[in-house]
Amino acid sequence: MLRLFHHPMSGPSRYVRLLLGEYGLSASFSEEKPWQRRREFLAINPAGALPVLLDGESDPVCGAVIAGEYLDETCGAMMREKRLMPENPQARAEVRRLTEWFLVKFEEEVARYLVGERVFKTLMSGNEGGGSPEATLIRAGRANLKNHLKYVGWLAASRNWLAGSRLSHADMAAAAALSVIDYLGEIDWNGEPAAHDWYARVKSRPAFRPLLADRLPSLPPASHYVDLDF
Amino acid sequence: MLRLFHHPMSGPSRYVRLLLGEYGLSASFSEEKPWQRRREFLAINPAGALPVLLDGESDPVCGAVIAGEYLDETCGAMMREKRLMPENPQARAEVRRLTEWFLVKFEEEVARYLVGERVFKTLMSGNEGGGSPEATLIRAGRANLKNHLKYVGWLAASRNWLAGSRLSHADMAAAAALSVIDYLGEIDWNGEPAAHDWYARVKSRPAFRPLLADRLPSLPPASHYVDLDF
Repeated sequence: MLRLFHHPMSGPSRYVRLLLGEYGLSASFSEEKPWQRRREFLAINPAGALPVLLDGESDPVCGAVIAGEYLDETCGAMMREKRLMPENPQARAEVRRLTEWFLVKFEEEVARYLVGERVFKTLMSGNEGGGSPEATLIRAGRANLKNHLKYVGWLAASRNWLAGSRLSHADMAAAAALSVIDYLGEIDWNGEPAAHDWYARVKSRPAFRPLLADRLPSLPPASHYVDLDF
Repeated sequence: MLRLFHHPMSGPSRYVRLLLGEYGLSASFSEEKPWQRRREFLAINPAGALPVLLDGESDPVCGAVIAGEYLDETCGAMMREKRLMPENPQARAEVRRLTEWFLVKFEEEVARYLVGERVFKTLMSGNEGGGSPEATLIRAGRANLKNHLKYVGWLAASRNWLAGSRLSHADMAAAAALSVIDYLGEIDWNGEPAAHDWYARVKSRPAFRPLLADRLPSLPPASHYVDLDF
């Protein structure tokens, strides 16, 4: 039995949820607030970061990139032509480059500011780093977001899927990362039509449905968030 | 023919240099100053980050973790029992967790401050972010370094190699990351005897020799840096 420690507003957590859906795997989900640094959670992942995947009694699989590799290694072959990682090492390197781009670089340059300031800070106590959002950081996140959206638009216009001709982990990583920002209504899809069309294709996949059902009690999603025809 | 874009004071670059040595692969090396954001380099890796591995005319392999996966996929099987990645997916997840720990987390919490302030800032022009080192950031890096060294000590005391019974990518990542900090004389090896003994074993490997020959014209290494009996 699989169990995922995650947070609904964590892009890397959403990436693993999407993969589980695409791989047709059922799992139980435990919402974790990593800023609380719960002792039991730190014992599972000393880095204190999300997500963490547990597969039965085996050692925890820590981190989104690593969980993706694990799912591909344990279930990828059974996916046959629907496998989300290519066979060729060079093509795999390109999928991994973009996966890391959206799970690490986007997280640092965009999510840390927009989700960090607008969401996580409001959920944290003062001791945990909570407080009022800082306008300068939100502006920095919005400026960085524009560049990332342009890059998605460029990739989507030059290729069928982001890393090449086939759907891959890279599409899941980018869609997971962007979906959190879209929940906040921060994305101007009109400005990047190729990115919009690519996102609409990913968003309409069955694996995406659980993400569209996410709700923060303190902050409802943007009106178009669940709309497949946005 | 392999070619590596790297910087001698970049831990992730050193990781790939160590792997090339362990895998017995020859390569040409191009020193890159990523803060200069050279247009030709950005065309190779739009993230602008080191290292980048070129394998002939194929697409570039960007990033240390990804280069490690690529080398394992293309050469790992030929290494037989000396392969630096285990076969079992769970054991691979543990190797990857620690590899990411030292290539990403250590980089953010330690190298960014100690190498960033003490080395890179002195090499950069004012426009590139250069200037005087900030004492508060150096103190933060030193405080974080203590925790990382304790963790290496704990791993080294509980296992033969850092990720388990066999030498792996995780040892290369940790030794690469620590070697840059050791060049700066920032590591008190006396305080962590198990970490010391583990590092001495990695440091004495032939693949490590090129790292010990690195010299910055503006900053010579700590006196014990090249010493195998430190």
